[in-house]
Amino acid sequence: MTGNTAYARLTARFTRLATLGEAAGMLGWDAAAMMPPGGGAARGDQMAVLAGLGHEMLTAPAVADDLLAAVPPADPWHEANLGLMRHAHRRATSVPADLVEAQSRANSACEQVWRGARKDADFAAVRPHLTEVVALVRQQASALSPALNLSPYDALMDGYQRGIGAGDVAPVFANYAQFLATALPQAEEIQARRGAPLPVQGTFPQELTEALCRRLSHRAGLEVDHSRLDKSTHPFCGGTPTDVRITTRYYDHDFSPSVMGVLHETGHALYERGLPARFSRQPVGEAAGMAAHESQSLIVEMQACRTDAFLGWLGGELLQTYGGDPAVYAAGNLGRLTRHIERGFIRVDADEMTYPAHVILRFQLEQALVSGDLAVADLPGAWNDGLHKLLGITPPNDAQGVLQDIHWYDGAIGYFPSYTLGAMAAAQLMAAARRAEPGLDAALARGDLSVLLGWLRTNVHGRGSLLGFNDLLRAATGKPLDPADFQAHLAARYLGG
Amino acid sequence: MTGNTAYARLTARFTRLATLGEAAGMLGWDAAAMMPPGGGAARGDQMAVLAGLGHEMLTAPAVADDLLAAVPPADPWHEANLGLMRHAHRRATSVPADLVEAQSRANSACEQVWRGARKDADFAAVRPHLTEVVALVRQQASALSPALNLSPYDALMDGYQRGIGAGDVAPVFANYAQFLATALPQAEEIQARRGAPLPVQGTFPQELTEALCRRLSHRAGLEVDHSRLDKSTHPFCGGTPTDVRITTRYYDHDFSPSVMGVLHETGHALYERGLPARFSRQPVGEAAGMAAHESQSLIVEMQACRTDAFLGWLGGELLQTYGGDPAVYAAGNLGRLTRHIERGFIRVDADEMTYPAHVILRFQLEQALVSGDLAVADLPGAWNDGLHKLLGITPPNDAQGVLQDIHWYDGAIGYFPSYTLGAMAAAQLMAAARRAEPGLDAALARGDLSVLLGWLRTNVHGRGSLLGFNDLLRAATGKPLDPADFQAHLAARYLGG
Repeated sequence: MTGNTAYARLTARFTRLATLGEAAGMLGWDAAAMMPPGGGAARGDQMAVLAGLGHEMLTAPAVADDLLAAVPPADPWHEANLGLMRHAHRRATSVPADLVEAQSRANSACEQVWRGARKDADFAAVRPHLTEVVALVRQQASALSPALNLSPYDALMDGYQRGIGAGDVAPVFANYAQFLATALPQAEEIQARRGAPLPVQGTFPQELTEALCRRLSHRAGLEVDHSRLDKSTHPFCGGTPTDVRITTRYYDHDFSPSVMGVLHETGHALYERGLPARFSRQPVGEAAGMAAHESQSLIVEMQACRTDAFLGWLGGELLQTYGGDPAVYAAGNLGRLTRHIERGFIRVDADEMTYPAHVILRFQLEQALVSGDLAVADLPGAWNDGLHKLLGITPPNDAQGVLQDIHWYDGAIGYFPSYTLGAMAAAQLMAAARRAEPGLDAALARGDLSVLLGWLRTNVHGRGSLLGFNDLLRAATGKPLDPADFQAHLAARYLGG
Repeated sequence: MTGNTAYARLTARFTRLATLGEAAGMLGWDAAAMMPPGGGAARGDQMAVLAGLGHEMLTAPAVADDLLAAVPPADPWHEANLGLMRHAHRRATSVPADLVEAQSRANSACEQVWRGARKDADFAAVRPHLTEVVALVRQQASALSPALNLSPYDALMDGYQRGIGAGDVAPVFANYAQFLATALPQAEEIQARRGAPLPVQGTFPQELTEALCRRLSHRAGLEVDHSRLDKSTHPFCGGTPTDVRITTRYYDHDFSPSVMGVLHETGHALYERGLPARFSRQPVGEAAGMAAHESQSLIVEMQACRTDAFLGWLGGELLQTYGGDPAVYAAGNLGRLTRHIERGFIRVDADEMTYPAHVILRFQLEQALVSGDLAVADLPGAWNDGLHKLLGITPPNDAQGVLQDIHWYDGAIGYFPSYTLGAMAAAQLMAAARRAEPGLDAALARGDLSVLLGWLRTNVHGRGSLLGFNDLLRAATGKPLDPADFQAHLAARYLGG
């Protein structure tokens, strides 16, 4: 590492900070995948202490001095790295340490209570905890807003994906809501005309599904020696770039949510595995943000693995795993099973056409929570009204409504838009990858994701955080985010016939 | 918390330090029970950063000032707590921070390499790592020695069990070696005269053994909501007092090492669960040391669960679990199976009579490593010679010799004596518990450990670190460590006729 000594001290400090973050990440994975319930209170304290130490490390007076004095090597990577250090420092110094610790503790306590509340469909049980979480998030947003010169809500969004605000997202989402109002009934009509697929029947023992999921994720490129697959209530990808940990859920009556969920999380995991190792533990070596991350899970799950090409190969694997009627696993039938459109209550089970409606709902509600226009006590009602407006359906209880997602209960407000930004970016990246790699679909037909993965490693993963979201898309696809590719993808897949 | 503000600041600091230690403990458990091999390097860094931060927290200049100014509440618990804080501070300030981080990193790297080296019986593969680990331990011992006014080896021992040194242990061990020279051939002769027990035959599927182990550990008093049972190469008990994590190994051909191993680790876990909650995360609220800890695993495994009374009940459970010939699981036969004396190579598989010989060997070798009288390159030879002198046998390879235990490869030198001090204390505590609780053995005959556990909670667990090892024994049994109880126990069990 060349550059001046102030920059060298900063890189050493950020390495230590990232290493501490890895420890916290592992404990977060453990809390969701391994920890017995009695460990929850102590884990909350542990996370709070690590968060507090990280905050102290980032806000120590020496950092401000070094950031002023730092001269990085004349190289875009190091220059971007210093810029990201300054950004992280600005975010951290504008939030007091006691608020950081209070949030960590409140989020952890709320998340633990939410696990029970969701099971019992009992929003009232978690309401006081969520009220506390939201109150602290609003304090955080108020503190960040002037420092970053962003609105309070945008300041929160910036923590998940830099360079995008509600002002960019709102028109894209409004446009999508319009598209959906026409496209969804059309797609439903076409689907109805085709008739129901042969249904998945029988039982799908967890051991078989788990072994299949493991095989699929390894075949997709995730190395055994650098990953784990476990169970958790809400599937996620955690861990560190050399030790990536994905989770899924299992259902006796269906393989599909588990298999598709694992392919989704594998996409996240491959992003982590492909980050530039020479900038490991530096800000510029991290993933480019949550929307970028979601583009990588969705390009694997939705863009690659739900194609007829890949499903043709996957059907053979499924038949071999479970036996039964081969016609169920034929590519056409599998396509109709796994690309089924339905207005449903649960975001993570939603098809790719209605999924953005779930995100739009949360985007509206969380802006209202942050502005103070909506009280936590009124959230279940607002949820049900909003879902009815967007999809014409109302959840039968809060477990299938406002309690379904971990995010808010864990303090993650401003995160939800990333899902749909990621879906749009995934379609745009897939179109570019197909243009660059004519053999891509033929490989998918052999269950081989390596052509796609090779392109992604060069054009997305290996770039770390060198470029912001739109610049990354421009470098990879020749244009900034363009929702047209996503709508074209949906039209081709669902309105074609 | 009353007392002056300096003492209040210290208790807050030690709470934070213990919480950080909990995080490191969880990562240590994960490394042994969950982590894919590719995560090893990053984990070493994570542990090193946490160790470094803990060291900084304990050695900050403010701590020395507060320790001088502190006035605890006039209460033996708080007074002992302050004494333990001073002791911890003295240990920490005598070792430079860069040595602490270097040790954490070297130990973690060595431990990872050891896992492969043991599998391949290839000492040479891990020799350079162990050489580095030992060199750093010697530096540590030299730094600690003058600060604690102890010999370098005693200064290391003090890190595992306060108040006991090589000078106390050596005569006890010499005495035991003498006892063994007579008792072992005698016990072997009696055993031979009785003839072989009906052997354990067939296969013991891991799922069945694991479910049985889980049931046994819960029945012994370890709560489902506060514990986990997993697999690891070397069984251990880790985690935190509200989230205790035990591990074991499974063998297709025998249930016994798994079942007895889990009962052993359950003894450790129950100690952690029984520590005084009102001094949670304070030095005085911790377990009294490693010998005390081992006394709690061995009182459950060896003193309680290998009695005819308990085995009579356990046999019924085994028969129900595995089926087969009921005569194998009859109390008498099970006693001969699980209390079989044999000169073997592997410490963790050793019977309670030959086990101290394994410890005596390690005690001698590690003193020589620390003094510099023995080079790491000469360790395998010295191991084999030493084992031959003590037990008259020589390991066929290093996997069954010097590579068998994780301890040295993880930097733990000065720990081994604790095992045999614990075995002796366990016999002494059991004798006292039997005097105090006449119903103890009748309860064991019903598979019920609650009478023993109740006595241990009052007389050992609930006392935390209030008393040193000998004072704890005095309070619980009326006398300091007395090896006579252990020899009487062995004589009754193995030389009775």
